[in-house]
Amino acid sequence: MSKRVAGPEIERLIQLLAKVPGLGPRSARRAALHMIKKKEQLMAPLAGAMAEAVEKVRVCSNCGNVDTSDPCTICTDPRRDGAILIVVEDVADLWALERAGTMSARYHVLGGTLSPLDGIGPDQLNIRQLVARVAEGGVAEVILAVNATVEGQTTAHYLTDQLEGFEVKVTRLAHGVPVGGELDYLDEGTLAAALKSRTAF
Amino acid sequence: MSKRVAGPEIERLIQLLAKVPGLGPRSARRAALHMIKKKEQLMAPLAGAMAEAVEKVRVCSNCGNVDTSDPCTICTDPRRDGAILIVVEDVADLWALERAGTMSARYHVLGGTLSPLDGIGPDQLNIRQLVARVAEGGVAEVILAVNATVEGQTTAHYLTDQLEGFEVKVTRLAHGVPVGGELDYLDEGTLAAALKSRTAF
Repeated sequence: MSKRVAGPEIERLIQLLAKVPGLGPRSARRAALHMIKKKEQLMAPLAGAMAEAVEKVRVCSNCGNVDTSDPCTICTDPRRDGAILIVVEDVADLWALERAGTMSARYHVLGGTLSPLDGIGPDQLNIRQLVARVAEGGVAEVILAVNATVEGQTTAHYLTDQLEGFEVKVTRLAHGVPVGGELDYLDEGTLAAALKSRTAF
Repeated sequence: MSKRVAGPEIERLIQLLAKVPGLGPRSARRAALHMIKKKEQLMAPLAGAMAEAVEKVRVCSNCGNVDTSDPCTICTDPRRDGAILIVVEDVADLWALERAGTMSARYHVLGGTLSPLDGIGPDQLNIRQLVARVAEGGVAEVILAVNATVEGQTTAHYLTDQLEGFEVKVTRLAHGVPVGGELDYLDEGTLAAALKSRTAF
């Protein structure tokens, strides 16, 4: 704002809110004002929840998930099938797969993909820990659920090499037509993969 | 999520974030994850700024603005012209006018518009205080910067009636073509108003 219209506390709140993904400078102001109007119903509990998360959330030393306990809720869930390990790039991918909700497996979060140009090599990712988990035994299948990008696929190939020699099946997600997708809008690579992996009707 | 993938603290954080305007359930998850990754740089300071705002922000008893001091920064700013009072519906409108930054006036925030169907009459708005401020003297002009909606205009008419009898000029914002706007996309009412209030080139 051109002139001071409020104390620095409100300006600071808006500036910090603008750094939250999904909010820009304009929506940060709207969000700040809304929260100021709903101080007791929204701002106070949200401030509390965030302070609690700052204090309690940690990275699971076993799988790389984020949770308030270490090992995390998933790693300690006895109803999950420990024989299947789904490898994902990011916690967001883990959450997405859990929303799909079809598999009751365990996870391993890499924390990114191999990207030599950005200085991200195997040691920057959670790979050694993955190999250690497989080496411990008990894992029958590793599903490489990395993104279908060049970096994701490069990482998948590297992981396959690393897991060679272990008694473990390494699989990856199927390529194909997204459910609800229209062929007309799909790229050639996806269509070619969908044709190649066609299934009996 | 279908199954518990994290402690209740993270779920609660996501649920509260989803109530912030501009964020939905999906972007709330993204925001939560981003903040968890930037705990020290973003989540901790934001939690602090919000807790501080909860404690310190109050409504200015003079003009209805929100600030950490009462009377607010604008009401106590000696460089502002107290003879001009800009009446707005909401603090967001005050902020918008301040961003335009052309007038160094004082404000009066109504807190809404007259809306009998919603049970909002003159007593639910900050109107008595406005009349009192004008009655005190020192105000030469009241600019009714209410929205160009039916409710806004109804409220403007009511305020004009209330301010009759005082030695004060009551004005309103000009109607016309928005700067950068294309005539083709404007409604007839705006174009008619812009024609009627045409100015010398």
